[in-house]
Amino acid sequence: MEKKPFVTLDKAREIAEKIPTPFHVYDEKGIVENVKAVYEAFSWNKGYREFFAVKATPNPFLMKLLAKFGCGMDCSSMAELVLSEACDITGEGIMFSSNDTPDEEFEYCAKLGGIINLDDITHIDDVLRILGSMPKTMSCRFNPGGIYEAANGIMDNPGDAKYGMTKEQLFEAYKRLKELGVERFGLHAFLISNTTSNDYYPALAKTLFELAVEIKDKLGIELSFINLSGGVGIPYKPDDTPNDIRIIGEGVHRVFDEVLVPAGLSDVAIYTEMGRFMMGPYGALITKAIHEKHTYKEYIGVDACAANLMRPAMYGAYHHITVLGKENAPCDHTYDVTGSLCENNDKFAVDRKLPKIEKNDILFIHDAGAHGFAMGYNYNGRLRSAEVLLHEDGSFEVIRRAETLKDYFSTFDCFDEFKGKLLK
Amino acid sequence: MEKKPFVTLDKAREIAEKIPTPFHVYDEKGIVENVKAVYEAFSWNKGYREFFAVKATPNPFLMKLLAKFGCGMDCSSMAELVLSEACDITGEGIMFSSNDTPDEEFEYCAKLGGIINLDDITHIDDVLRILGSMPKTMSCRFNPGGIYEAANGIMDNPGDAKYGMTKEQLFEAYKRLKELGVERFGLHAFLISNTTSNDYYPALAKTLFELAVEIKDKLGIELSFINLSGGVGIPYKPDDTPNDIRIIGEGVHRVFDEVLVPAGLSDVAIYTEMGRFMMGPYGALITKAIHEKHTYKEYIGVDACAANLMRPAMYGAYHHITVLGKENAPCDHTYDVTGSLCENNDKFAVDRKLPKIEKNDILFIHDAGAHGFAMGYNYNGRLRSAEVLLHEDGSFEVIRRAETLKDYFSTFDCFDEFKGKLLK
Repeated sequence: MEKKPFVTLDKAREIAEKIPTPFHVYDEKGIVENVKAVYEAFSWNKGYREFFAVKATPNPFLMKLLAKFGCGMDCSSMAELVLSEACDITGEGIMFSSNDTPDEEFEYCAKLGGIINLDDITHIDDVLRILGSMPKTMSCRFNPGGIYEAANGIMDNPGDAKYGMTKEQLFEAYKRLKELGVERFGLHAFLISNTTSNDYYPALAKTLFELAVEIKDKLGIELSFINLSGGVGIPYKPDDTPNDIRIIGEGVHRVFDEVLVPAGLSDVAIYTEMGRFMMGPYGALITKAIHEKHTYKEYIGVDACAANLMRPAMYGAYHHITVLGKENAPCDHTYDVTGSLCENNDKFAVDRKLPKIEKNDILFIHDAGAHGFAMGYNYNGRLRSAEVLLHEDGSFEVIRRAETLKDYFSTFDCFDEFKGKLLK
Repeated sequence: MEKKPFVTLDKAREIAEKIPTPFHVYDEKGIVENVKAVYEAFSWNKGYREFFAVKATPNPFLMKLLAKFGCGMDCSSMAELVLSEACDITGEGIMFSSNDTPDEEFEYCAKLGGIINLDDITHIDDVLRILGSMPKTMSCRFNPGGIYEAANGIMDNPGDAKYGMTKEQLFEAYKRLKELGVERFGLHAFLISNTTSNDYYPALAKTLFELAVEIKDKLGIELSFINLSGGVGIPYKPDDTPNDIRIIGEGVHRVFDEVLVPAGLSDVAIYTEMGRFMMGPYGALITKAIHEKHTYKEYIGVDACAANLMRPAMYGAYHHITVLGKENAPCDHTYDVTGSLCENNDKFAVDRKLPKIEKNDILFIHDAGAHGFAMGYNYNGRLRSAEVLLHEDGSFEVIRRAETLKDYFSTFDCFDEFKGKLLK
C-alpha cells in the first residue's frame, strides 16, 4: 500500500513555526473517515460499538472526536478511567479490560458505571469484596490456550499470554456471576496482535460465537455482547496488505448468521476494542534532520528520539519515513536515521533507502498515531512531544503541549534544595 | 554470585508504611563501598576520575553522593547538564558525551565549563559556529569499526554503532582542533556494553593507548586523558561471574606501563564513565504481590509494571527476584511475575523458580539501580515510582517522590476544558 503523508512540507513548516519539532500530528479527516467506515462495516449489528483502546493514544481531544461517532473507551488503568471521565464518557461507554488490577481501579470503574471485563476468575471475589455486590452487567475474558490459528498463516500462542480465563474457568465464572445476580453478560478475547488479514476477526468471532452457543446451552445464559477486542492491524510497510474493514465486517456478519442466529442469539451486540486500526495511520511524528554523519555507515540524526516514538527501539518495528518535499525524489541513499539517545537502538530506520537528506529537511514518520506518543519515555532526560490535530479545513490546534524540563523534574518539587535549581 | 537483597522484609515494610509500593530503594553502603573500590583500583593513576553516567540513574541525591568521592558526571542531554549544575558539579566535572547533539546543548555545556567529547568530526564546525571559538580542552570519540574482540568471547560490532569517528577522522579532528587553539586533548571510546570480564577494560585500554602513542608520533599531540567510557557490567544472574574492579584496574595499569610509559605519556589521566557498575546492584525495585492467577501457567501479579522497570520488557533482561522473608525457602514453584500493562511483555520474570508467593508478599527485584527508574515510561497511564535512599545507619529518606496523575496529565494544563478534570 502506497505510504502517502497527510501533510505537505508547507503545512509541516507552518505548524513547526508555532510548535517546534519534534511533534506528533493527527489527521482529523483520516480519523473520521475511518471511524465512519468501521461503523458502516458493522452496521448490520444493532448493538455494535467500538471501544477505542485508550492506551494507544491517550489524548482527550482524540477520544472526544471518536466519541462523537459513537465510540466508547477501552480502559485498563486509573489514568485511562479518569481520562474517559474527563471526556464525559462514562457508564457503559467504558469497557474496563484490565489485568492484575488494583482494588481502587475496580472501585473507580464501578463508580463511573463502566463495564468490568474480568481477566481472571479470582477477580469475582475481589469485585464482591470491593463493591459489596456485583454490577448488573459483567464481562469475562477468555483465553483458549495453546496455539491459536485464526487462518492460514495467522497464529499466535495465547497459552503463553497472561490474559484471560481457561474455558473451564469461564463457565464457572458465568455460573457464579449469575448466582450473584448479574443480568447482562459479555464475552471478550484478545488473541493476536496487529494482524493484517481480513480473516482474523471472522475466525475469532466463530470461536467466540460457538462458545456463546455452548454457554447458552449449558448455563442458560444468553450473552448480551461479544467483544472481539483488538488485533486488527495496519500496513506499516509499503508492501503490507491493508485490512479492509468492510470485508472484515461482512466476514463477522456471515459467521454471526451461521452460528448465533440459528441458536436464537441474534440480539448479541458486537463490540470491538481497536486502537492501532483507529488511530495508527492517522498520526505521524514530524522531526527535523539536524545532523549528517559519515563513518562506517551513513547517518542522519534527527531532533526526535525514542522518547517520542519507541516502537523501532523496543520492537525493531518498521515505520515508513517520507522526506517532505521529496516525495517523488529517487530513494538512492541508504541511511540509518537516528535519535540522540545514548543507546544504540535509538534508530528510527536502519539501512533505509531514502532520497538525499539535507540538514533541516523535515521527516514524516508514518503510523505513529497509536502506541507512539503513548509509549514515550524520558531516557537521557529527553522530553516527550506536543500533539497537534490537523482539522479537515487545514487549520490545526495543539492538543497537548510539549513536555518541559520543569515537567521532567516535577517529582523533585518537594525538595527545597533542588526546587529553585530544577523547577525554575 | 549469590544474589542477596540489601533490605530485610522488616525494613521494606517499614519503608512501605511511608512510601507505598512500588518504589526504588538504593543502598548507600553498597554505593559508597563500590565507589571507594573503584577509586582504589585506579589509585595508581594520578588523574583518574570516574564520570558517572547520569542516564543510568538521574537522581541528584545519588549524583551528589558519588561526587563526594570525587566522581564527575557523564552527561548527554540538556536535562543531565541541568541536573549536574543543580548538584554543583560543573567545569571539568562534566564530560559531555553526546551524539546527534542540538546546538543549545553544546552551548549549555560550554557555559558550565564541561568537557565536550565530540562524537563526530562535523561537530567541530558546529561547536565553532555556536561558541565562536574552541574550548581549551576537547575530547574525541573513536569508533574502530568492524568487529571488536576485546578478549576471548567478548566481542561486539562497533561498525554498526552510531557513535564515534573513524581513525582517519579522529586524526583529522585532532589536527584541526590543535590548529583551532585547543590545548588539552582527550580520547574516548565505547565499544561493548555490560561485559562481565575483567579483560574488557585492559583490552580497550591497549587499543586506545596504542592509538595515543600514534597520535603523539604523527601529530605531536600528547593526550591529557583517555576515557574508557562504560561497558563494565554486573552479574544480573546468580551464575554470572562478577567483575573484580581491582583486577580490572591492575590490568589497565599493566597496559599503561607497557604502552604509555615507554612512550613518555605517563601523565595521561584515565577516565571512566560507568553507570551500571556504579549503581546497578545498589538499587532494587520493591513491589507487592497483589494477584495470583492459575491458567495455562502460574502467574503472580505485582503492583509494579514496566513503567517502573522496563529492561525485562524491552530487552528480555533477567532481573533476579527475592521474596523478602522467604530468602531460605525452597524455590519449588514456577511463576511468571507480571505487571498490569495491557502488553504481554510486561513480565518481570518468565518461568522463574521461586518460593510459594502469597498475596501481599514483598518482592525485591535486584539490580534495578541503573537503567531502572531512568527508563520508566507511562504506558497505560501507569506512574513512575518514588526513589528511597537507605542510609548506612538503617534510616532512609525519599530522594524522589512518586508520580501522581496530576504529573501524568501536566501537559494538558494549558486547556481550561480539561484542567479542572485532569489536574485537580
